[in-house]
Amino acid sequence: MDNKILDLIEQKDFMLLKEELTKVRSIDIAEAFDDLDKKNTIILFRLLQKDKAAEVFSHLTYQQRKDIVNAMNETQLKEILEELFFDDKIDFLEEMPSNVIKRILATATEEERKLVNQFLKYPENSAGSLMTIEYVDLKKEMTVKEALNYVKKVGMNRETVYTCYVLDEKRKLEGIVSLRKLVLSDEDLLIKEIMEKDIILTHTMDDREYITSLFKKYDFIALPVVDKENRLVGIITIDDIVDVMDKVTTEDFHRMAAMEPTDEEYLHTDVFALAKKRIPWLLILMLSATFTGGIIGKYESVLEAIVTLNMFIPMLMDSAGNAGTQSSTLIIRGLALGQIQMSDYLKVFWKELRVSSIVGLVLAAINFFRIITIERISNDIALTVSVTLFFTVVLAKVMGGLLPVIAKKLKADPAIMTGPLITTIVDALALVVYFNIAHFMLGV
Amino acid sequence: MDNKILDLIEQKDFMLLKEELTKVRSIDIAEAFDDLDKKNTIILFRLLQKDKAAEVFSHLTYQQRKDIVNAMNETQLKEILEELFFDDKIDFLEEMPSNVIKRILATATEEERKLVNQFLKYPENSAGSLMTIEYVDLKKEMTVKEALNYVKKVGMNRETVYTCYVLDEKRKLEGIVSLRKLVLSDEDLLIKEIMEKDIILTHTMDDREYITSLFKKYDFIALPVVDKENRLVGIITIDDIVDVMDKVTTEDFHRMAAMEPTDEEYLHTDVFALAKKRIPWLLILMLSATFTGGIIGKYESVLEAIVTLNMFIPMLMDSAGNAGTQSSTLIIRGLALGQIQMSDYLKVFWKELRVSSIVGLVLAAINFFRIITIERISNDIALTVSVTLFFTVVLAKVMGGLLPVIAKKLKADPAIMTGPLITTIVDALALVVYFNIAHFMLGV
Repeated sequence: MDNKILDLIEQKDFMLLKEELTKVRSIDIAEAFDDLDKKNTIILFRLLQKDKAAEVFSHLTYQQRKDIVNAMNETQLKEILEELFFDDKIDFLEEMPSNVIKRILATATEEERKLVNQFLKYPENSAGSLMTIEYVDLKKEMTVKEALNYVKKVGMNRETVYTCYVLDEKRKLEGIVSLRKLVLSDEDLLIKEIMEKDIILTHTMDDREYITSLFKKYDFIALPVVDKENRLVGIITIDDIVDVMDKVTTEDFHRMAAMEPTDEEYLHTDVFALAKKRIPWLLILMLSATFTGGIIGKYESVLEAIVTLNMFIPMLMDSAGNAGTQSSTLIIRGLALGQIQMSDYLKVFWKELRVSSIVGLVLAAINFFRIITIERISNDIALTVSVTLFFTVVLAKVMGGLLPVIAKKLKADPAIMTGPLITTIVDALALVVYFNIAHFMLGV
Repeated sequence: MDNKILDLIEQKDFMLLKEELTKVRSIDIAEAFDDLDKKNTIILFRLLQKDKAAEVFSHLTYQQRKDIVNAMNETQLKEILEELFFDDKIDFLEEMPSNVIKRILATATEEERKLVNQFLKYPENSAGSLMTIEYVDLKKEMTVKEALNYVKKVGMNRETVYTCYVLDEKRKLEGIVSLRKLVLSDEDLLIKEIMEKDIILTHTMDDREYITSLFKKYDFIALPVVDKENRLVGIITIDDIVDVMDKVTTEDFHRMAAMEPTDEEYLHTDVFALAKKRIPWLLILMLSATFTGGIIGKYESVLEAIVTLNMFIPMLMDSAGNAGTQSSTLIIRGLALGQIQMSDYLKVFWKELRVSSIVGLVLAAINFFRIITIERISNDIALTVSVTLFFTVVLAKVMGGLLPVIAKKLKADPAIMTGPLITTIVDALALVVYFNIAHFMLGV
């Protein structure tokens, strides 16, 4: 499908291309843009019909949108923006430089300008910034028949018609009616007789994690957003929540891998921006690892006495890091999904203590056996290494389990505690345990 | 809300409790079960009305369901199962031991038994295992009015009515009509005049990642599933896809943290099961880390000549691991979201080469400065460590970027390549680079 578009551009057969474009879905057209240069981007965009152009536009990347905006005059720009759903319009305005926003708002009505400015003020990741204003509002005195006729009249321009919102004269939310209920109900019934009054809702300042948890728990396809006076100001739909879920997860992955989180696609981010996201944590971790190196420096005499002990340092450090990361990842993910609460810290401690004892015993036993049979090193040293391994695994897992819960308690981000910090912390612990056990058991 | 339920059970006020339960949402009732023992679980469940009981049942944990099933007779069990949506019924049967399945199927009709057996055969995570059979089917010769009346008649027992499926007499899928379109269209139009014929669909054996990508791309709330002959066999709804997204991500997190993935909630999993998920990878990594230790053993003479070199090993190993994990995590996530393709490997290589050069230079420069000013160690050694750091970061990032793509190409799981393997591989590389540069620059 995409290839056909690209071929027609190549052949400059714009008549045929224009017709072809009416048959292809907006999202598939948007994907074709990825393979175009700036000139062809603008050519292709100009060939789209107005309503389709707006749909395609909402799927394009930041750079593609910017190229298109710069090539359009005020009238053309206004036409596109009028066709956009309000949330897409706000998303677009948020990423544009202020001179473009000025150009756009110059042609807007006073009322619209006020609304746009209000929306631009909602904090990123709040319900206010996620919602759209195109919903169906009903009155409770309407009959089902009147309500269905109203849906028929306005439904075309609403993001969803499947959930309708019953408002009083002050726009306060009184109830919710699904289109399913409307269609299945007797047409002479009144809306107030069939509406759901026990409403689950969010407030403009609620954060996206909380909103996502509501969608997951109640299997909604839309959720109303109200202001402090309980007036309906917008709705959030499930398709936006699906995107939010991906973003939140991506940020967690990035944090756990010691990077500043980003939304932007890897292939579309330039190398300096990527380097900037990575350097800070690597620096912090590099400097804290010198502290670990300092521990080796401090116990140099032990290592000089028995040089063989050196050989086991990578294994002990890696095992500590891996064991700790396993536990912290499980707990961070459990916290993110709401399966583990902060109040569960004693349960986590007790569980990790038992799991780590089992894991530590198995690892230590196999390690001991391996050293005396394959490496043929003295029993003393094999025992020292294995006992260290056991305690290291237990310590790493208990710390890995508790650190994310403590972070959450301190209102820090639990994801930061794994990957980056847990490895460094347990590495240092592993060495301290190692040298002390060696000192005690081998008398060095 | 939950607390009220628990209080009433405590007070054994079952009359009031029964009434209270009619007012509370199923999912909230299901959550109250988490705080009950076996006896009260069964008491509370028996107080629920039949249709609500089925809804609550579909939200309970494996153990809670088992307790309830064991306390019910055939008739009661059958009543509950009849109220369940078909996909929930199959999910339930899949987790029950065979004697329970026998008890349940004993009371089913021949036709139902055949259907259940067919569904139980679909592979886990396939479209077949995710779909349900309660959809609305229309005929293309119906008028919009007839179709709406039909929806009115059957809609109550269908998982969704928002997408309706147009089938021919052989149940082949000919088109799709949304309820929105039905409500907004003139009631005398024929379904074939308004149906969407360009259908996005899935086949019973398609896997869940592919299905999820379709939902994300096209913002669907339901997707049809057809068999090889293009006959409609079921539908998948967005609420199930939201759950799938969480499961897939959780599995990726687990794999990247060197664990066998699991669906079960941490707090509900026993310690031996948890240990079993963690030991295999820790063992593999422990054994491969001894290989890294072997490298130290091999270059013992270098370390004995300049003992100070020892101190920098943790910093070099940690930086290598962290730098590699950053890159592999970015690429794995990009692959999972479809933002990076296998064919992009050259782009990834070139991008990582440039990013890592910048990152490596910054880290090496700061490291050099730190060693000569704070640690006051000779310039030779500071230079050796810093040059090693630069090459280590570059190697780690290029490997971290390419390994996931190679894994995907070899049809292995890219998530396995990060956390667990990348650290071990780049640790070993870091040491080899270190000792060779030391040998070359310091002449040891």
